Amino acid sequence: MAEAKKSPKPIIGCIGLGAMGRPIASHLQAHDHDLVLYARRREAFDQELKPLMEQGAKAASSPAELAAQVDVVLVNVMAGQDVRDVLLERDDAVVHGAREGLLVMDHSTIDPDTAIAVHNQLAQHGVDFIDAPVTGGSIGAEAATLATMMGGDDHAVARALPILACYTKTQLHMGPSGSGQITKLCNQIAQVITIQGVAEAMQFAAAYGADQRAVMDVMSSGFANSRMLELLAPKMIDDDFTPLMKSQLLDKDAGIATMAAKAKGLNMPGLDLVAKQLADVQERGWQERDVSILIKALTPKK
Amino acid sequence: MAEAKKSPKPIIGCIGLGAMGRPIASHLQAHDHDLVLYARRREAFDQELKPLMEQGAKAASSPAELAAQVDVVLVNVMAGQDVRDVLLERDDAVVHGAREGLLVMDHSTIDPDTAIAVHNQLAQHGVDFIDAPVTGGSIGAEAATLATMMGGDDHAVARALPILACYTKTQLHMGPSGSGQITKLCNQIAQVITIQGVAEAMQFAAAYGADQRAVMDVMSSGFANSRMLELLAPKMIDDDFTPLMKSQLLDKDAGIATMAAKAKGLNMPGLDLVAKQLADVQERGWQERDVSILIKALTPKK
Repeated sequence: MAEAKKSPKPIIGCIGLGAMGRPIASHLQAHDHDLVLYARRREAFDQELKPLMEQGAKAASSPAELAAQVDVVLVNVMAGQDVRDVLLERDDAVVHGAREGLLVMDHSTIDPDTAIAVHNQLAQHGVDFIDAPVTGGSIGAEAATLATMMGGDDHAVARALPILACYTKTQLHMGPSGSGQITKLCNQIAQVITIQGVAEAMQFAAAYGADQRAVMDVMSSGFANSRMLELLAPKMIDDDFTPLMKSQLLDKDAGIATMAAKAKGLNMPGLDLVAKQLADVQERGWQERDVSILIKALTPKK
Repeated sequence: MAEAKKSPKPIIGCIGLGAMGRPIASHLQAHDHDLVLYARRREAFDQELKPLMEQGAKAASSPAELAAQVDVVLVNVMAGQDVRDVLLERDDAVVHGAREGLLVMDHSTIDPDTAIAVHNQLAQHGVDFIDAPVTGGSIGAEAATLATMMGGDDHAVARALPILACYTKTQLHMGPSGSGQITKLCNQIAQVITIQGVAEAMQFAAAYGADQRAVMDVMSSGFANSRMLELLAPKMIDDDFTPLMKSQLLDKDAGIATMAAKAKGLNMPGLDLVAKQLADVQERGWQERDVSILIKALTPKK
């Protein structure tokens, strides 16, 4: 047999280096991937990325310049429009520097139709695109225990898997392009409505002078049990809104889900309600507080 | 030491012999309790109670007549007014036949203030009263695996425990009179709102052409997980609305919770919404279907 020559690890470009993107880049570097970094906010480079640069990561001055130097692009930005901007619409977007065969993987949570549109437009340039939103939050990103749910073509997902293994614990291929985002939004819809239910139950217990923790224990042993009850009811009881999940992230996701539901003409009264409650939480200045602060949004503003 | 004489088991009167009351009576009889039965609907006697009567249970013609013959009264009826009627307000109510020291235990789910009022009125006649709503449904009653959450005085709860052991698996003393009902309503509030969230997520998945079962599996491994997801999402996916929990029971409980929230001036928008959806389910004639049929109530009536 011929001597196997180990192919070098793919060079990875990271766009977006916030609470998710930065720890992901760090894990990739620890797994010997060469990195090229691009952050829209220049100050992010100077402050948080110094350790990555000191370990050999290069900075690119634009998404196009980044794309020209790498095999794979990871995107961790906020909204669907941000994804469109950096990949397609800016004059210096990824598409303008991309070689054929580039793989782009988007970890942002955006609406499924945007994901599908981006996939189809990139495909015209010979670029593979996977929607791969994650769960587990920044804590999961730091600990490399994220779960990702992917939508995209089989061959693209196959290329992504060894890279994802550096910073995720679970990788699920849900179906064609958009399927990752659909799955993520289903998750967020059930999750935020469940949180609302926990908040109302805990408010009811308090108003009737019950021992909230004892009530929570009973609930957790029966039909009212949920992950959100287990994680967030204690925070509601203790008035401890240090963020496990920042309200602004679920506000964003609820907004995306609401729009995506409207696009299909769906009646989603529970989602609409909780999206309204989450918007109210933002207006009250509680963006950085844990989403369990929904219990406080039950008390009308004075 | 004097020879201990084993005291005979308390004689138990059962008021309400429907899906909960009948199997409870049966378990008590199997544990050698003498029974006296009263059902408001006479036909219930003729049809379902024959086996109990053949094993020696007596029938009483009124709650008062029943009370005069027993040590403990169990109540399994529907609404708060039913409880008031059979215990206090009818001419032949329990209170008119009760001896001092009678223990009354109510397994119905009613509002906490009614439970407290009944407790206080019965106390004036030397009658102990415990609010002891149950979870586990008719399946739990048949299998003697119910859980009960009790509100009442310590000495009354102590008397109740050996009786409850015949047909419940878990017995929790939550606090003073009303605490059992408060706990049960907290449970129902979180539960019905969680079901709404599961229904909306599953509707969203279907509208976007996702593999609902794969989406459910992802959700159940993360922050969207709940007992209701595990139990009811498969029913929604399979269009299988054979009852695990009849929608009319949760409609009733949501109505009680809504009134109890209003009584305290609470803002409970999630509960209000799901109560409305459950009322709509009743109007559509789906009272006997499983509560997972909430997913169908998302589609407006034609």
